[in-house]
Amino acid sequence: MNKQLLFVKRPIGAADAATWSLEKNPIPEINEGQILVKQHYVSLDPAMRGWMNEGKSYIAPMEIGSVMRAGSVGEVIASKNQKFDVGQYVAGTGGVQQYAVSDGKGFYQIDPKLAPLPMYIGTLGMPGMTAYFGITEVAKVKEGETVLVSGAAGAVGSIVGQVAKIKGCRVVGIAGGPDKCRYVVEELGFDACIDYKNENVASRFKEVCPKGIDIYFDNVGGEILEIALTRLRMHARIVICGAISQYNTKTKIKGPSNYLSLLVNRASMTGMVVFDYADRYKEGAQVLGGWLAQGKLKSREDIYEGIENFPETYNRLFSGDKMGKLVLKVIED
Amino acid sequence: MNKQLLFVKRPIGAADAATWSLEKNPIPEINEGQILVKQHYVSLDPAMRGWMNEGKSYIAPMEIGSVMRAGSVGEVIASKNQKFDVGQYVAGTGGVQQYAVSDGKGFYQIDPKLAPLPMYIGTLGMPGMTAYFGITEVAKVKEGETVLVSGAAGAVGSIVGQVAKIKGCRVVGIAGGPDKCRYVVEELGFDACIDYKNENVASRFKEVCPKGIDIYFDNVGGEILEIALTRLRMHARIVICGAISQYNTKTKIKGPSNYLSLLVNRASMTGMVVFDYADRYKEGAQVLGGWLAQGKLKSREDIYEGIENFPETYNRLFSGDKMGKLVLKVIED
Repeated sequence: MNKQLLFVKRPIGAADAATWSLEKNPIPEINEGQILVKQHYVSLDPAMRGWMNEGKSYIAPMEIGSVMRAGSVGEVIASKNQKFDVGQYVAGTGGVQQYAVSDGKGFYQIDPKLAPLPMYIGTLGMPGMTAYFGITEVAKVKEGETVLVSGAAGAVGSIVGQVAKIKGCRVVGIAGGPDKCRYVVEELGFDACIDYKNENVASRFKEVCPKGIDIYFDNVGGEILEIALTRLRMHARIVICGAISQYNTKTKIKGPSNYLSLLVNRASMTGMVVFDYADRYKEGAQVLGGWLAQGKLKSREDIYEGIENFPETYNRLFSGDKMGKLVLKVIED
Repeated sequence: MNKQLLFVKRPIGAADAATWSLEKNPIPEINEGQILVKQHYVSLDPAMRGWMNEGKSYIAPMEIGSVMRAGSVGEVIASKNQKFDVGQYVAGTGGVQQYAVSDGKGFYQIDPKLAPLPMYIGTLGMPGMTAYFGITEVAKVKEGETVLVSGAAGAVGSIVGQVAKIKGCRVVGIAGGPDKCRYVVEELGFDACIDYKNENVASRFKEVCPKGIDIYFDNVGGEILEIALTRLRMHARIVICGAISQYNTKTKIKGPSNYLSLLVNRASMTGMVVFDYADRYKEGAQVLGGWLAQGKLKSREDIYEGIENFPETYNRLFSGDKMGKLVLKVIED
């Protein structure tokens, strides 16, 4: 049987157990042009909350009754598609289910010998590509700059900061709790990390970035974006990658009241969506993969188990109770 | 005697009569290296409100007791500076006074035969340079794009829109009242103009920009910025030039609650300050001057008279009770 998590109710505010319904259905047959993927891991990402909303966005909203959208990795166990062979491992957007049928669109072959499977939905997948192209292409990071990253222990932020370090920058992270901050500084090599849950961000910020910042890579929005805006250097660039602090709000999102700092500092704020770099993912994965192999880049996945546990695992995205890339193992041994 | 308007009290909210004090002082003597300018016209600009605030900005705040800062044009009537001769006309930042002493820094010679003096503090001065470099260099306007401009009848907005028209764009203005809107469309040649005082901006916007906008040149901030953010096309650029709707607020400035539209549309919001283009003003003035001469560009100055009338003339910036570049004649016949 195929356990599938269906998206059954659009949440108002935070998603909860009523948002999804777990169903068991027969493993589907495939038609000409299709593949059947036995999924091993699915990816959990803050962007999921946005996909649940109705209305125009950078991607179509999920339809009620559809399988919960998610990145995934697994093995091709049946193929009527010339591009894929049985036994190959693939990554794609297979959704939160144990078996995925696809016409192959968006799936691509991966090599489980080069890296563990979960890394292909983390550092070598969307979050890694977001980080890599965000900091290099959108922020156009340059040697010697000061880079601030929120969500610094997370799947995207941890890579952003490490890439900026490799590029010769001073890097300051923002993360929740002393464990994450220690990890960010001691394991990932950031120059400093501010614990937004226990420290006064504004005053710590002055301490660790006395001359301000050239780049702010924003994954969180809200108050931290406001504080970052007070510390811009001339020609600073803010990359708007996400706003996790605002995703569950039931009221209007909090916009940055001090956005005129952009004017004063001739600074910019630019939104990004990783899909725009799809034709360069291979390049990005090669660069990040090279750094991983050389030990210059560290990747950490926080893996939970059991498709039944999706809702509570998903909540860790917002509570912050996780370390690194959040992944759910859906294959049953 | 030299009538001078001194800045004597930092306003909270809107400036009022108590903000300034008119004094009469002897016409000063000049020292080695200085010039004495008999001023004809001073410029009134929304940016003045920002200069009155304490705290770091793109320019030092005005000091209490100093002459009210303002752009100006006048005649050199005494010179102990090799770069300037008596009888030359100059533009610079002479302040709201009838006679200005300067070491020449920031003053440059102008030709009253090529254009009327007030135009040198308007279309051929700061506002014109702001418009020209803002739309060409910051927004990087391209033929065929749709450009939205707020403050469309004003000193900056009127030039932004006309330059965009010359560059082959569809241009929509936002202005206050039917007279200004008529002027913007019929005289300046914009494709449409929304009257924010009498029309529903959001719904009119859908009518006149059904496919959204590529560029929004923002002089006003607040609600109109919010609405513009709802209508961005992919890779749209917002130029943050000013936020006149927010300058007199006594509370926190209203930030754009829907700034995540930047993410969805891979759009950017970039602040500008015209001073960054100081070494290219000559180029800008030549281009705009050429278009003026060819009749491709129209410039309108709204000239009031009498240094005593500065406070009420200044208020026209915020009430909108003016048409085109606001100028005060301070020379007495």
